[in-house]
Amino acid sequence: MSVKTAATDHPVNPLIASRFSPYAFADRDVPVDELRSLFEAARWAPSSYNEQPWSYVIATRADTTAYERLLSVLVEPNQAWAKAAPVLALGVARTRFVRNDKPNAAALHDLGAASAHLCFEATARGIAVHQMIGILPDRARELYEIPDHSEALTGLAIGYAAPPAEAPDPYRQRDEAARERKPLSEFVFSDRYGNANPFA
Amino acid sequence: MSVKTAATDHPVNPLIASRFSPYAFADRDVPVDELRSLFEAARWAPSSYNEQPWSYVIATRADTTAYERLLSVLVEPNQAWAKAAPVLALGVARTRFVRNDKPNAAALHDLGAASAHLCFEATARGIAVHQMIGILPDRARELYEIPDHSEALTGLAIGYAAPPAEAPDPYRQRDEAARERKPLSEFVFSDRYGNANPFA
Repeated sequence: MSVKTAATDHPVNPLIASRFSPYAFADRDVPVDELRSLFEAARWAPSSYNEQPWSYVIATRADTTAYERLLSVLVEPNQAWAKAAPVLALGVARTRFVRNDKPNAAALHDLGAASAHLCFEATARGIAVHQMIGILPDRARELYEIPDHSEALTGLAIGYAAPPAEAPDPYRQRDEAARERKPLSEFVFSDRYGNANPFA
Repeated sequence: MSVKTAATDHPVNPLIASRFSPYAFADRDVPVDELRSLFEAARWAPSSYNEQPWSYVIATRADTTAYERLLSVLVEPNQAWAKAAPVLALGVARTRFVRNDKPNAAALHDLGAASAHLCFEATARGIAVHQMIGILPDRARELYEIPDHSEALTGLAIGYAAPPAEAPDPYRQRDEAARERKPLSEFVFSDRYGNANPFA
């Protein structure tokens, strides 16, 4: 298992610091019990009005036809590295409420939260997840008959991280690079957008 | 500290199972070091093109003017319970990319992920977070001079959960109710949207 720990400025839980999105995956399947726990974690994310607007379409390498079908929904540059992951998924948001068909302004936000839960649980189990926005939503709608009330937004490659040297070019360099983020002072504000909060 | 653990169908990390959104907060401030770690956790969320489109406007009870100002951005029903929380925040998404001003389809999703990271770190520290979509985005834009490239989407009440009996009516009942979610089979699909994956 390859690990790439964040250089944090303030202490955070190890599961936050060690989560990362690999481009290299080991040739090792994810046991089905582990998958259940990953999606169980997504299940318990909070959501606006407890709507739980997220859903996932999932294919494992064990079913070649299903796997190739899901792989075909990723844009080609993502297919190049994601095809090494034993599990692929699509993150789908229901953008209209079940009860009244009105737009749910929190739908994409809440899918993001559910997928973050899935990533925490994965990290706790030594499993890595690499999410991508580079998918073909129209193709996903057609292939999986996704209704108009919902939309596929993300792809998820799930498996065990391999050393960066095993990532295909040109992704090896990205996998080797240190993780970088803006400092707190650039996104933690006080009296005005852009004004750093004194504690940041 | 009040805790409301989820009745999960499959094992998940205790930090996932014990996260919940309380309506009752104890009269106890959150130390500034803890706040730094909460936003540090948000900082390390993954995002599309590492854009990090999230930002937060934060007010603590120690600064009454700033606190009241932020409270006024929540819809009134949320003010009723959120005003007991020692820390309030707004979650803001930059919906256009910094580098080219084009729409970022992942912006709201990635704000959701960052806030989920924040909640996870909070849970690890015995701190509770209750997010809400019920805010006044236009008022937020005006008060905090939020640029057109960004939008306030969520409110966050942050503090230490108190027993549900301390929540104001009619929220006490919600706080006392068990946490409920759809089963995996209703959102974990296989060959078609709506068809449960065999493992679910």
